[in-house]
Amino acid sequence: MRKVDVVGVAVLGVGRAGMVHARNFAEHVPEARLAGVYDADRERVDAVASELGTKGYYNIEDLLQDASIDAVVVAAPTFAHKDLVVAAAAAKKAILCEKPLALTPDEAEAMQEAVTAAGVPFVMGFMRRYDENFRRAKEIIARGDIGRPLIIKSTGKGPGLPSRWAWDVKKSNGVLGEVNSHDFDSVHWLMEAEYAWVFARGKNLRSEELKEEFPDFYDNALVMFEMTNGCLGMIDGSCPSEYGYDARIEIQGSEGVLFIGDIARHGLTVCTRSKGVAKDVVDSWRSLFRDAYLKEDRHLVECLVKGVQPQTTLQDGRRALKVVRAANQSIITGKVVSI
Amino acid sequence: MRKVDVVGVAVLGVGRAGMVHARNFAEHVPEARLAGVYDADRERVDAVASELGTKGYYNIEDLLQDASIDAVVVAAPTFAHKDLVVAAAAAKKAILCEKPLALTPDEAEAMQEAVTAAGVPFVMGFMRRYDENFRRAKEIIARGDIGRPLIIKSTGKGPGLPSRWAWDVKKSNGVLGEVNSHDFDSVHWLMEAEYAWVFARGKNLRSEELKEEFPDFYDNALVMFEMTNGCLGMIDGSCPSEYGYDARIEIQGSEGVLFIGDIARHGLTVCTRSKGVAKDVVDSWRSLFRDAYLKEDRHLVECLVKGVQPQTTLQDGRRALKVVRAANQSIITGKVVSI
Amino acid sequence: MRKVDVVGVAVLGVGRAGMVHARNFAEHVPEARLAGVYDADRERVDAVASELGTKGYYNIEDLLQDASIDAVVVAAPTFAHKDLVVAAAAAKKAILCEKPLALTPDEAEAMQEAVTAAGVPFVMGFMRRYDENFRRAKEIIARGDIGRPLIIKSTGKGPGLPSRWAWDVKKSNGVLGEVNSHDFDSVHWLMEAEYAWVFARGKNLRSEELKEEFPDFYDNALVMFEMTNGCLGMIDGSCPSEYGYDARIEIQGSEGVLFIGDIARHGLTVCTRSKGVAKDVVDSWRSLFRDAYLKEDRHLVECLVKGVQPQTTLQDGRRALKVVRAANQSIITGKVVSI
Amino acid sequence: MRKVDVVGVAVLGVGRAGMVHARNFAEHVPEARLAGVYDADRERVDAVASELGTKGYYNIEDLLQDASIDAVVVAAPTFAHKDLVVAAAAAKKAILCEKPLALTPDEAEAMQEAVTAAGVPFVMGFMRRYDENFRRAKEIIARGDIGRPLIIKSTGKGPGLPSRWAWDVKKSNGVLGEVNSHDFDSVHWLMEAEYAWVFARGKNLRSEELKEEFPDFYDNALVMFEMTNGCLGMIDGSCPSEYGYDARIEIQGSEGVLFIGDIARHGLTVCTRSKGVAKDVVDSWRSLFRDAYLKEDRHLVECLVKGVQPQTTLQDGRRALKVVRAANQSIITGKVVSI
Repeated sequence: MRKVDVVGVAVLGVGRAGMVHARNFAEHVPEARLAGVYDADRERVDAVASELGTKGYYNIEDLLQDASIDAVVVAAPTFAHKDLVVAAAAAKKAILCEKPLALTPDEAEAMQEAVTAAGVPFVMGFMRRYDENFRRAKEIIARGDIGRPLIIKSTGKGPGLPSRWAWDVKKSNGVLGEVNSHDFDSVHWLMEAEYAWVFARGKNLRSEELKEEFPDFYDNALVMFEMTNGCLGMIDGSCPSEYGYDARIEIQGSEGVLFIGDIARHGLTVCTRSKGVAKDVVDSWRSLFRDAYLKEDRHLVECLVKGVQPQTTLQDGRRALKVVRAANQSIITGKVVSI
Repeated sequence: MRKVDVVGVAVLGVGRAGMVHARNFAEHVPEARLAGVYDADRERVDAVASELGTKGYYNIEDLLQDASIDAVVVAAPTFAHKDLVVAAAAAKKAILCEKPLALTPDEAEAMQEAVTAAGVPFVMGFMRRYDENFRRAKEIIARGDIGRPLIIKSTGKGPGLPSRWAWDVKKSNGVLGEVNSHDFDSVHWLMEAEYAWVFARGKNLRSEELKEEFPDFYDNALVMFEMTNGCLGMIDGSCPSEYGYDARIEIQGSEGVLFIGDIARHGLTVCTRSKGVAKDVVDSWRSLFRDAYLKEDRHLVECLVKGVQPQTTLQDGRRALKVVRAANQSIITGKVVSI
Repeated sequence: MRKVDVVGVAVLGVGRAGMVHARNFAEHVPEARLAGVYDADRERVDAVASELGTKGYYNIEDLLQDASIDAVVVAAPTFAHKDLVVAAAAAKKAILCEKPLALTPDEAEAMQEAVTAAGVPFVMGFMRRYDENFRRAKEIIARGDIGRPLIIKSTGKGPGLPSRWAWDVKKSNGVLGEVNSHDFDSVHWLMEAEYAWVFARGKNLRSEELKEEFPDFYDNALVMFEMTNGCLGMIDGSCPSEYGYDARIEIQGSEGVLFIGDIARHGLTVCTRSKGVAKDVVDSWRSLFRDAYLKEDRHLVECLVKGVQPQTTLQDGRRALKVVRAANQSIITGKVVSI
Repeated sequence: MRKVDVVGVAVLGVGRAGMVHARNFAEHVPEARLAGVYDADRERVDAVASELGTKGYYNIEDLLQDASIDAVVVAAPTFAHKDLVVAAAAAKKAILCEKPLALTPDEAEAMQEAVTAAGVPFVMGFMRRYDENFRRAKEIIARGDIGRPLIIKSTGKGPGLPSRWAWDVKKSNGVLGEVNSHDFDSVHWLMEAEYAWVFARGKNLRSEELKEEFPDFYDNALVMFEMTNGCLGMIDGSCPSEYGYDARIEIQGSEGVLFIGDIARHGLTVCTRSKGVAKDVVDSWRSLFRDAYLKEDRHLVECLVKGVQPQTTLQDGRRALKVVRAANQSIITGKVVSI
């Protein structure tokens, strides 16, 4: 047994995404340790601190004063992102912020200012960019294997109704914000282009019980858009999707077509009379992007320790936010929205 | 050897689609024989008549006066459909008309009147409805396996630039008419609903050389729409697509998701270091829908001989035409078009 | 309506395979008609004759005297093949004989003599050779895409216990004869080589109730072999297989590997929480090889009318019989059997 | 930054497999650190020590005297396993030994005695047992989803000619030992049964240049066997296989069939005219079993620190060795070998 130096990372908000990061830093990142967790829910703090053998914090100020904490992951609900990021920046902590960045451009602006002023590393939580298949896809496109991209279609669906606070689209930016921010970012990243305009429709097709109280709520959405490189594109989102998690992209190029992702888990096929030839569906972003989250978390440490530039930036988060809000505006007005 | 009675079928227009029908009646439909071919190109008439051992006609009147011809397949360019169908109806021939039905609502109206007046069977050439996978998909949806349909996406792409006459979108209805009529019909048929509105964009992304003379020409198009059952949907078309023929539909339901079609041919996989794990791409609608065309052609005979009602009607052709034109109008105006 | 000349074909034995041929000639082969059916079961004769609108025969002599019958398909149980083929040859009918050819080398010898003496066309019912995927596979191998073949593995499984008469392996040659004759033939055809030796094991793993009366019966078998071109190979058979019909071949070459066939039906995928990502299993050789049977049946007519040489010969049937019997001998003796 | 206690692990033999372990302990196992490397090749020692920032040892005795080294991974050529394991055990180091365990039963016996005497944890390097798909497959079988296993087929192929020392089968146990040890272990583990007999053939089909000097060398092998639970089975091995790494298992059960593994990498499909619909082939066991190796390495630490029982044991290694040698004996004698 020997002693080695490791970075201390705290996780702010230990819901589903927060727990992915917390477990990574507790068990899978050799160069770091989980140094603390904070959540608005005190029972949750106690349970997680106990389970993962780390320190639990009931208020964020105490946590940020802990000098053994070098970095924080912001995984609280979106409406809490701005305050947490601004406070963490002020405390000179390196920051990984889950998507979506924020609810409004004003919040995003405040976060940008705080981070810039503090000079701390900021990693935007677009984990798909760290996924091996997404990276290989970007290489294949850049290499010209499918020629010039002409049409891109991105599908993002997940099981489970969003949290209650997210049902009010005016506050939360809705499913397009909470789920499809990833699609908006991936399309930009793969195309290496900006959005020119969007046209979107969202409908509440499955959640009858929310219609009265949340008339704007939609559980299914289609977004059409054009990129500045001339590409046309489409994003469809569906949440909850009963069958599992679904993240696929299809890119029509002038010389071929590229498909990223598969709805089925890989490596096992069972054939029986009653079920036919069946593979398990991808059940969660947690399993599909497990390695990507780990790489993202290690990238945070790398940015902090080695001073490398973040691969996913606050600016990336702002771009996605802008397009999401434009799409929501299109849903409300029924018109094309320029960006 | 014995003699059996068979129906005489002539094919009007023996280009690519016409040849599929001509070969079917010459070689694959036991209850019929190929009784003649007509084409505006006289050399083509001679070549095909010789190849398939049938009678060639240089003008349509002669053909329609041949009493041994019981039915005709109209497979000429779209702009010729109306005159051919009206003449064939007047001559009391049963009719199978290739898609798209016509170029304008007026033409379609005239065709409807002629067919109704003549009382002849009319089969609209939406062969996908005769395809086994499309039929099974419709059954699966009707059975409720994927719950209530929420979002439908249909992809229709084909290799080969359209014929010159089709470059002028005002005359031809463009790629959406010539290629994606199938998608518009399939979506309607699978959803058992009508179109409420469409929003579309078409762009000339690959055919630089056509831009000056045909400024409206588009080789790639995206169409978003809503159905009267509340479903949202999307159609993407690309023609020419370099890699092959691509007809796929994805239907998101409240309980699951259904995929029709595959870009790869079935049944053979070759793995080598240089090509990886590869299947042949579906190269043509001729191979993908071979059985569907044969069933469609036999259905024509069945309608004629047994008096059964056509499964694909002139009205189906009119519906698709209406939506295609609305989508083209949306491309031109940049606005949502109600239907 | 016109009259055209068609060949008269009778089907001898209208069980499962016989009905495939009978329906083909009744409905799908333009150049032929179903001219009669015979079966040892008189009720079956009446039912099929009525269903397919053809003449039923209670004894074979009457059928063979019908001059309007030009060809016969022998699809009776294997033990009846020899007598039927010899009689049909004597009556100068063209013959398509279902696999396996016969039960013993002596029977096969007698059939060969009768056919040779009569000079009638004889098509051996190895329908896989007429299947598009098998043909493309043979071309790919011949073209050298996977280099020199090194190892070949062929899987042949089918649902449904064999008929009672087939339970006595000494009489029937067992599952290897009734089911895996196809595999033995395909391997020979694809490799373009003969069998050098076989080593086989068969076990009754599922049919406890047959063990006492039929101690030799096996429902699962593995056969290892070497070809004269140096290739090693393996065939596995399982009948009944509960889940469906399964015919796949895998060929390891010096430069790559080739897979023929797939356990799943093509073109539709349904994803739901309860079943995962599922395709229908191939349920029967009737659906998988529908086109192959049709081509085989048309080939019979072609051999008769145009005098082309059969692509699958009586000699092919004898070769497969020889290897099947050697494999059964290996199962009994536990030893390698040279061929 | 804080200091945490970590286990010191040294890797003995830093060829291909050794480097997988070395990198894991250097970069991916939070609870351990790479504490040293040894190799018979001194230049290799220097290069790896430099690259991974660890201590290099030219002789094994020095390494084993280093008290900061708590465990060793034995990844040297098979002929060196016995001496290294015996020495490491004597030095009270925990041991992970790569497959195959040893060359002879005598060596295995000596290793067993040394490990038992020392009382150190010993993890046998059958990493497939730590792979998620293999584990899920075992659960699916145990749950009865495919009924009772009847036939099992395991394919193990890899690119790259084995090292020169392995060309003499008498010394190395050949490809069956070096490559297919994994298959022999997986079959035993999944079936939960022992081998009753084996029958095998191996042929030199690709390595003409080795025939004179190494007449026993085979690059392709087929093994047939029966398990004590009545199952029949087959293993095919091919090395080098030009196209990539191939590890697949197919299990025919009384109620269904299960497939483990896929020759293609998951998650990306590219379709172009020249290559068709293509996925990358799995290029190496390093990528396919990356997670499995990591879990195996963490399991070693867990056995050492927490005292849990190894999931893969020296006894597992001995069983595989026994069957491999029986199969080689069958290749030489041409006869079935009982076990």
